Amino acid sequence: MIRNRIPDVVVRRLVTYLRVLNDSPLSGGYISSAELGDLAGVNSAQVRKDLALFGEFGKQGVGYPVKELAEQIARILGADREIPVAVFGVGELGTAITRYLVTRKRLNPSYKFIVKALFDEDKRKIGSKLEGIAINSPLDLEKVCPPGDIKIAIITVPASAAQEVVDRAVADGIRGFLNFAPVKLKVPPGVRVLYTDVTLELQELAFYV
Amino acid sequence: MIRNRIPDVVVRRLVTYLRVLNDSPLSGGYISSAELGDLAGVNSAQVRKDLALFGEFGKQGVGYPVKELAEQIARILGADREIPVAVFGVGELGTAITRYLVTRKRLNPSYKFIVKALFDEDKRKIGSKLEGIAINSPLDLEKVCPPGDIKIAIITVPASAAQEVVDRAVADGIRGFLNFAPVKLKVPPGVRVLYTDVTLELQELAFYV
Repeated sequence: MIRNRIPDVVVRRLVTYLRVLNDSPLSGGYISSAELGDLAGVNSAQVRKDLALFGEFGKQGVGYPVKELAEQIARILGADREIPVAVFGVGELGTAITRYLVTRKRLNPSYKFIVKALFDEDKRKIGSKLEGIAINSPLDLEKVCPPGDIKIAIITVPASAAQEVVDRAVADGIRGFLNFAPVKLKVPPGVRVLYTDVTLELQELAFYV
Repeated sequence: MIRNRIPDVVVRRLVTYLRVLNDSPLSGGYISSAELGDLAGVNSAQVRKDLALFGEFGKQGVGYPVKELAEQIARILGADREIPVAVFGVGELGTAITRYLVTRKRLNPSYKFIVKALFDEDKRKIGSKLEGIAINSPLDLEKVCPPGDIKIAIITVPASAAQEVVDRAVADGIRGFLNFAPVKLKVPPGVRVLYTDVTLELQELAFYV
């Protein structure tokens, strides 16, 4: 299976499978496609089809080995090594996310995402620390993170500041953005932006209630 | 088109179309399926198929009327009326989300989601206000929000407290949850939970960078 041929929707399901497998109390055992599908909200035929991408993995009548399957998916996703992350914007949301990531890592040392650098434009914050991580000016990005050091950034700055921050980050080699600012970002080809927007999720819920 | 027959994936795309249409500077004009698809990240054939669910809407060679289409989708999604929301957990994340929703409403009075009630277990917070909204004990939920008043809740309490809060909210008639607590929630049939998890989104990005 060639890695860059995996469709986006499959990537998203693999992420969900990995979460289910990592949460599973069966880490030494086997999980059936029906069980995995049930926990991931995917039908079992689709689970089998997705996992067949990796070659023969499941055992007829037994299921998939939980630990090996999780390792395999993590490898495919590139989540089998530590991944340094920068957070731009240390307001309430940026603080909450940073604390969450640092806590996850503290509770589970094999957690892969590590906040390596924090950035905020507010002069009162620059030079202070959050969870032991120094807060820097985004103007110092290249100094704090030499190009290529960090590939993923979380954007929680105000909408009006987001594009400028992202341009600077792209110039520094950051290739993936998780964007919480309510604004569409322009990035060059090869750079990926995931948008997180509470309004979209509330609108989806509004349909069902 | 029978409302409860719309598949989940289509609901999600409709939400995205609505966002694109609401953001469009063309509010008096027309948008083609190619333009709409481009902005929504969906191919134009899929856009036409999704919108055909609503009957004949687009004009050959002209496109869809932006304002009417947005109104139609909002009506289908149930997002054409004000929707009261409760936030459980007024820590950093709950505070950030509350401020965001209140600000959206202030900037755009037609914004549909209104934070009506805040809940936190912390005695030091109970009785105080955030953005003019009183913070209550979750034990007082039935008093503050008579059953049926609120249908959607945002959960930002710690994982260990989430299930208890959700059980209480379900008993009070809340039918949709946007869950930021890193825990799987048990809810009865007919109740919907959307999970938001920074880790899943980072894992998806990790694949692409």
